[in-house]
Amino acid sequence: MMARVQRLASIRDSGPERLIAFSDGVMAVIITIMALELHPPGGTDIHDLAHRVPALLIYVLSFAMIGIYWNNHHHLLRATERISALVMWSNLHLLLWLSLFPVATEWIGEEYRHALPAAVWGVVALGSAMAYFILVRALLRVHDAGSRLALAIGRDFKGQISAAIYLAGFGLAFLPFGPWLSYACYVSVAIIWFVPDRRFEF
Amino acid sequence: MMARVQRLASIRDSGPERLIAFSDGVMAVIITIMALELHPPGGTDIHDLAHRVPALLIYVLSFAMIGIYWNNHHHLLRATERISALVMWSNLHLLLWLSLFPVATEWIGEEYRHALPAAVWGVVALGSAMAYFILVRALLRVHDAGSRLALAIGRDFKGQISAAIYLAGFGLAFLPFGPWLSYACYVSVAIIWFVPDRRFEF
Amino acid sequence: MMARVQRLASIRDSGPERLIAFSDGVMAVIITIMALELHPPGGTDIHDLAHRVPALLIYVLSFAMIGIYWNNHHHLLRATERISALVMWSNLHLLLWLSLFPVATEWIGEEYRHALPAAVWGVVALGSAMAYFILVRALLRVHDAGSRLALAIGRDFKGQISAAIYLAGFGLAFLPFGPWLSYACYVSVAIIWFVPDRRFEF
Amino acid sequence: MMARVQRLASIRDSGPERLIAFSDGVMAVIITIMALELHPPGGTDIHDLAHRVPALLIYVLSFAMIGIYWNNHHHLLRATERISALVMWSNLHLLLWLSLFPVATEWIGEEYRHALPAAVWGVVALGSAMAYFILVRALLRVHDAGSRLALAIGRDFKGQISAAIYLAGFGLAFLPFGPWLSYACYVSVAIIWFVPDRRFEF
Repeated sequence: MMARVQRLASIRDSGPERLIAFSDGVMAVIITIMALELHPPGGTDIHDLAHRVPALLIYVLSFAMIGIYWNNHHHLLRATERISALVMWSNLHLLLWLSLFPVATEWIGEEYRHALPAAVWGVVALGSAMAYFILVRALLRVHDAGSRLALAIGRDFKGQISAAIYLAGFGLAFLPFGPWLSYACYVSVAIIWFVPDRRFEF
Repeated sequence: MMARVQRLASIRDSGPERLIAFSDGVMAVIITIMALELHPPGGTDIHDLAHRVPALLIYVLSFAMIGIYWNNHHHLLRATERISALVMWSNLHLLLWLSLFPVATEWIGEEYRHALPAAVWGVVALGSAMAYFILVRALLRVHDAGSRLALAIGRDFKGQISAAIYLAGFGLAFLPFGPWLSYACYVSVAIIWFVPDRRFEF
Repeated sequence: MMARVQRLASIRDSGPERLIAFSDGVMAVIITIMALELHPPGGTDIHDLAHRVPALLIYVLSFAMIGIYWNNHHHLLRATERISALVMWSNLHLLLWLSLFPVATEWIGEEYRHALPAAVWGVVALGSAMAYFILVRALLRVHDAGSRLALAIGRDFKGQISAAIYLAGFGLAFLPFGPWLSYACYVSVAIIWFVPDRRFEF
Repeated sequence: MMARVQRLASIRDSGPERLIAFSDGVMAVIITIMALELHPPGGTDIHDLAHRVPALLIYVLSFAMIGIYWNNHHHLLRATERISALVMWSNLHLLLWLSLFPVATEWIGEEYRHALPAAVWGVVALGSAMAYFILVRALLRVHDAGSRLALAIGRDFKGQISAAIYLAGFGLAFLPFGPWLSYACYVSVAIIWFVPDRRFEF
C-alpha cells in the first residue's frame, strides 16, 4: 500500500510540505512544553524569584537552540524538491533528539550545579546535530548534484563547529567548575548562530 | 446546517487538507507530550540517570509508533480525493486511540517490570491498528474502485502482521518474563516498519 | 495600524484560512492535553487499572465533544467568505470555553461521584454551545442573505437541542444520583451528533 | 548553506507563510498550555470551587492577551512581502516573551494577593510589547516606504498606550493594595484592544 502512495508522495510541490508542517508542529510544541516546565517560585519575595533565574536562563538557551533548528530545518526543506522514506525517518530521528531538550532543560533547571545534567544536555545537543547532518545526507541522496538543494547546502562550517563545541561542553562538565564551562560552550554555539554573517544578507 | 456545508466539504481539493492538518497537529502534540512525561532523574549521579533509561527506551518505542502512524496516515490521505462524515469520525477514532499512547507509555516507564502495563500498551497499539483499518475502509466507501486511493491501498500485509504481533504481545505479557516478551514483540513491529523494502523505493 | 491591515485581511481567499489554522491548532492541543491529564494507575494490578476507568470514560466523552466542535467549526468556516474583528473575538471566545474542558474533565476524573464537577462540566459545555452560536451570528453579520454561508447554516436543531440537554444535565447533577443523570445527558448529546442522519449523506 | 537557501526564502509568496504557521503553532500551544495549569479544585463543594476563581480570572486575562497578540501578529504578517534573518530572530524573540505568560499566570493563580507575581506578569507583558515593536521595525527594514506593510502599519497608538499601562501596572504592584491596581491596569489594556473602533470597521 505505501509503495504506490509513496510514489505519489514524491510529486514535487506536495512532497516536503506535509513534512515541514508536521515538523513545525512538533518543534512548536517542544519549544512551548519547556515553558510549561518552568515552575513558578515557591514563595513571593525576590529571593524566591531569584532561585528560579538559573532555570529561566537555561530555558532561554534551550529555546534559542530549538529556534535555531527550526530556522535551519525550515530553510533546508524549502529547497527540497522530493522526499523519500529515508528522509521521513531521518526527520523523525531529528525530532526525537529535539524532543529530549525539554527534559534535559528541566533537569538542569533543578540541578544546574552538577556535572551530569550539564553533560546530558550536551549529549542531546550533539545527538540533534548528528541527526540534522543525517537528514541533510538523506535529502542529498534524492537530489542530483545540480539541484537547488545541492547548491543550497554547500559546506556547513557552523554545523561542524557547533558539534565540536557540544562535544567539548560534554567533556568539560566533569572538570572542576565543569558545569559552568559547559554552559559557556553551549551559549557560544547559540551566539555563533545568532551573529549575523554575510550568508544572512539579502 | 451541517448538511449543506458538508456537501461543500466534499469538494475535491479542500476535502482532506483540513483533516490532514488537524491530524498532523494532534499527532505532533501526542508525540511531544510523551516527552513531557519523561521526568528528570531524582538525583545527579549516573545511577539516578540509569534508573530513567527504561522510561527513555519505551518513550523511543512509542515515539516510533506515532511516527509510523503519522507516516502511513499522511500517505494514505494524500491519495484521498473526497471525505465523508464517516471518514471524519473514523479519523477522530484513530486519534483517540493514538492519544492513549502517552499515558500507557508513562505507566510502563514507571512500572516496566509488571505484566499489566505491558499488556495495556499492547491494547492501545492494537486499538490503533484497528482504528486505522476502519479509517481505510471508510475512505474506500467514498472512492470508486478505479480511484487513486483504491489503487494505492491494495493489500496491507504489514498492517495485518502488526496487529497479530500486538495481540501476541498482549497475551505474552502474563507469562513468566512476560513484559520482556511483550516488549520484544512491540519492538519487532517497529522494526518491520522501519526496514526499507521494495515498496519504499522511488 | 490594524485598521488598514484588517482591510487587507478581508480579502476573500485568505480571510478565514489563518483563523481555521489557529483554531485547529488550539483544538488539537486541547484534545491531546486532556490525554496528558490521564494519569497512569497507582499500582499494577487490575483493580488499580479499574480505578482509572471512570477517568478514561469522561476523557472519551470530552474527546468526542471537542471532536464534534472541531468538525462543526471546520465545516462552518469552510463556507466563510469574509471575517471581521467581531468574528476574530467570537472565535477566540469559543476557544476559551473549549479550553476549559481539560480541567473540567480532570476534575470529574478525580471526583466523578460528586455533583459539582458534573455540573461544572455542563457549564463548560453550555458556554461552548453559546459561544458557537455567537460565532455563527458574527459570521452572518458579514455575509449577505444569499451567501454560501447563509445558505449553509439554515436552522441548527442539533445545536439547540444540545444546549437544552446540557442545561438539564447541569440541573440534574444536584438531585439524588445526580452525577449519573448528568453524565447520561452529556453522553446523549454526543450520540445525537454521532448518529448519521440524512444531512450527512453525500 | 543557509545563505543561498535564505535567498530562496525571500520569495514573496512563501516567505512569511512558514513564519506565520510556526508562530500560530507556538501561540496555539501557549494559549492551551495555560489551561493545563488550571488545576481542579481540591474538594467538591462550592467553596473549593470559589478558591479557584482568581486563577480562572487571571487565566482569562492571559488568554485574552495571547489572543490579542495572535490577532495583531497575524494581521501584521499578512501584509508582509519578504522576511529576513533579523525578522526570523525578532519573531522568535517575541514568541519567547509570550511563552513566559503561562508560568507568570500560574504564579498569580497561586499567589494573587502578593506584589511580586503581579509585577512579574507586567514585566512579561511589557517585554512582549517591546518584542512586538522590534519585530515591526525588523519588518520595515526589508520593506520600502511604499509597500503594503509600510502603509498598513502607520502609527500604533494602542501599542504605545498598552506599554505605558503595563509599566504603570508593574510599578503600582508595590503600593498598598498594589496587586489589585496592577490587575486593573492589565484588564484595561485588554479592554482597549477589545473595544471596537473605527479602525476595525470593514
